[in-house]
Amino acid sequence: MDIQQYMQKVGQQARAASRAIARADTGVKNAALRSIAAAIRRESVALIAANREDLEAARAAGLEPAMLDRLALSENGVAAMAEGVEQVAALPDPVGEISELKYRPSGIQVGKMRVPLGVIGIIYEARPNVTADAAALCLKSGNAAILRGGSEAIRCNRAIAALVHEGLAVAGLPADVIQVVDTTDRAAVGQLITMREYVDVIVPRGGKGLISRLLAESRVPMIQHLDGNCHVYLDDAADADMALSIVENSKTQRYGTCNTAESLLVARSAAARLLPPIAAMLTGKGVEIRGCGETLALVSEATAASEDDYASEFLAPIISVKIVDGLDEAIEHINRYGSHHTETIVSENYTKAMRFLREVDSASVMVNASTRFADGFEYGLGAEIGISTDKIHARGPVGLEGLTSQKWIVLGNGQVRS
Amino acid sequence: MDIQQYMQKVGQQARAASRAIARADTGVKNAALRSIAAAIRRESVALIAANREDLEAARAAGLEPAMLDRLALSENGVAAMAEGVEQVAALPDPVGEISELKYRPSGIQVGKMRVPLGVIGIIYEARPNVTADAAALCLKSGNAAILRGGSEAIRCNRAIAALVHEGLAVAGLPADVIQVVDTTDRAAVGQLITMREYVDVIVPRGGKGLISRLLAESRVPMIQHLDGNCHVYLDDAADADMALSIVENSKTQRYGTCNTAESLLVARSAAARLLPPIAAMLTGKGVEIRGCGETLALVSEATAASEDDYASEFLAPIISVKIVDGLDEAIEHINRYGSHHTETIVSENYTKAMRFLREVDSASVMVNASTRFADGFEYGLGAEIGISTDKIHARGPVGLEGLTSQKWIVLGNGQVRS
Repeated sequence: MDIQQYMQKVGQQARAASRAIARADTGVKNAALRSIAAAIRRESVALIAANREDLEAARAAGLEPAMLDRLALSENGVAAMAEGVEQVAALPDPVGEISELKYRPSGIQVGKMRVPLGVIGIIYEARPNVTADAAALCLKSGNAAILRGGSEAIRCNRAIAALVHEGLAVAGLPADVIQVVDTTDRAAVGQLITMREYVDVIVPRGGKGLISRLLAESRVPMIQHLDGNCHVYLDDAADADMALSIVENSKTQRYGTCNTAESLLVARSAAARLLPPIAAMLTGKGVEIRGCGETLALVSEATAASEDDYASEFLAPIISVKIVDGLDEAIEHINRYGSHHTETIVSENYTKAMRFLREVDSASVMVNASTRFADGFEYGLGAEIGISTDKIHARGPVGLEGLTSQKWIVLGNGQVRS
Repeated sequence: MDIQQYMQKVGQQARAASRAIARADTGVKNAALRSIAAAIRRESVALIAANREDLEAARAAGLEPAMLDRLALSENGVAAMAEGVEQVAALPDPVGEISELKYRPSGIQVGKMRVPLGVIGIIYEARPNVTADAAALCLKSGNAAILRGGSEAIRCNRAIAALVHEGLAVAGLPADVIQVVDTTDRAAVGQLITMREYVDVIVPRGGKGLISRLLAESRVPMIQHLDGNCHVYLDDAADADMALSIVENSKTQRYGTCNTAESLLVARSAAARLLPPIAAMLTGKGVEIRGCGETLALVSEATAASEDDYASEFLAPIISVKIVDGLDEAIEHINRYGSHHTETIVSENYTKAMRFLREVDSASVMVNASTRFADGFEYGLGAEIGISTDKIHARGPVGLEGLTSQKWIVLGNGQVRS
């Protein structure tokens, strides 16, 4: 197969289909989604069988256990996949929403209309549920999608694609609205991220390695997510119980998520009051503490933190701790070492809370709440295609709205410019 | 001078200054802008003298008359520049605006806060007024700016930069908030558009040639404007007088602007009624008509249009005309040949007007209004850094808001995730 030729064809088909899905009624899109969900439930056994073949091939190829784990699809996994698609059907349609329509002195009315981006390219790794999930979000937001899953999941992805196409056909929508790239050749990715004429935005879902690689080569805008080195800052006006419970939840509720806290900053004047009980709680839960010199003096279990530790996303029961002068040093430290993902201050001081909110340059900035809340469902988006650590277009959790843009509309009755 | 080293230093200084300007109060930013405007007025003679040196050097280098024209700065030009800066001071500050703050079932309040993008790189050609204009917009929106003007305007740009720095100093803001690249070496542009760590967005202002070149090499997101091949579509339900006046204004009010209509589409069933008087008006004004076969039969002055004519931005008294089946063909033609800039339908039919609004994939879509309204001032933005024909981030006229993004904020009182 000539990969360039194949991908050009996929791109052309996606562009053509994007026109049809952009003007599809909400009811038609929801009917397609409900048909897809029903087909997934009906074919549960077949999907699990296809997944088993993928798993066998992956084991034979010597894939790591963690990867095999992500690849595996259970009966519950299939049910969750169908339910996810139904949830997207139930969300409000963002397309066509008109806002800020105002009369201007010239007599025209000017406003904005929300419209699909066009064609979304999704590049992801092992998890087969992303195929259904991303297909549903792109379809509901009126976009065509080109899905490029991991080669290790190709059999299951093909099977899901067939069910998506069945649902599209039931609703009278063209099959090319959702295309799964049907080759495991890595050159297809290189094509996908450079076809500016056919692809409007790329959403990569995977580890930092994948994303950095794509970022270096992409000619298409990307909604990207690098790492989540999230901070909790305990101000001297922090309530001790609240500080403990927010650090506990931010750090220890789950160790492997991007909104988990990796670093704790404590105001010097409050360190002796706040840090020892928190350190005891963390140590009790098996969390390793890597701290600055002052931390070591207060916390006997701590080991010395390196410069690298402050810049690290551990994704593990490890936390870096630094005692800082106060708010200014905390903000400076976060903006320098952080990854602009999610940070929270614990403080009862109004002025400091407001300054933290404004001056911390992160996608999510919080007061007196756990960093673990940085999530599309917790924010009320209903679903999430990813979390962006970029500033352009979409920032933080990206839902249906992040897959749309706004065009200007002008309503007149014959006005001309003088 | 080592250009790479120089630009790295400019980038680092901009990043550092961006923190200061991001947290500056509205009053401080406005004070800086008013001081800059006053300094520009005061130094009118010196600015014109610097411009005269630029003009002499440009003439000696054999620059084209059109370019010299754009480079020239008159006394009125200086006054307009100062007035432009004062107008930006009078605009509302977009930074810090909190919207959609809502309680979630978990008890947290989630909303969005508007924040500066960080560092904006502006790349432009001869016009020296862009220096003051772009500096004012970046400053007001809380961003640091790196301005790279045409080498032919360097003396005048340096003089303007000194006045901008004077104004920043009066308000107590760091000089590096606005930096003018002080070298005519073209390698500086190559550096500017690839310093992802120091530059958040590039705004190119210039011809299609400049922008295409930058687009091919840029590693930084760009708010870009390619061409403006704008359409007027006359539906069979169009009022004849309104059709005539909208075509006249869209095409002939100014020939050289990006929101000028370059192509006219007419529904077949209305062509005999609408087209002859419009053709007579256009011909009377010296506009050359290039039409399809059916147009030629109705309009004796027309010559045959080529495929290229339909895809052209003439920026001249030339218009392409095509008679189409109706709305479907019009939309298809526009989405295929147009540049996604601005299109208008003239129609009294509600259903067709609504379909045109929704299905035409352009930055501005209008009903019964002249394409010439596609402009930041006419839309009420107060000022305009450029017009984007892209879909990501900003679309159409880009004002202060287009130089900002929104971060998520969460207000809690101790909530943790369960």
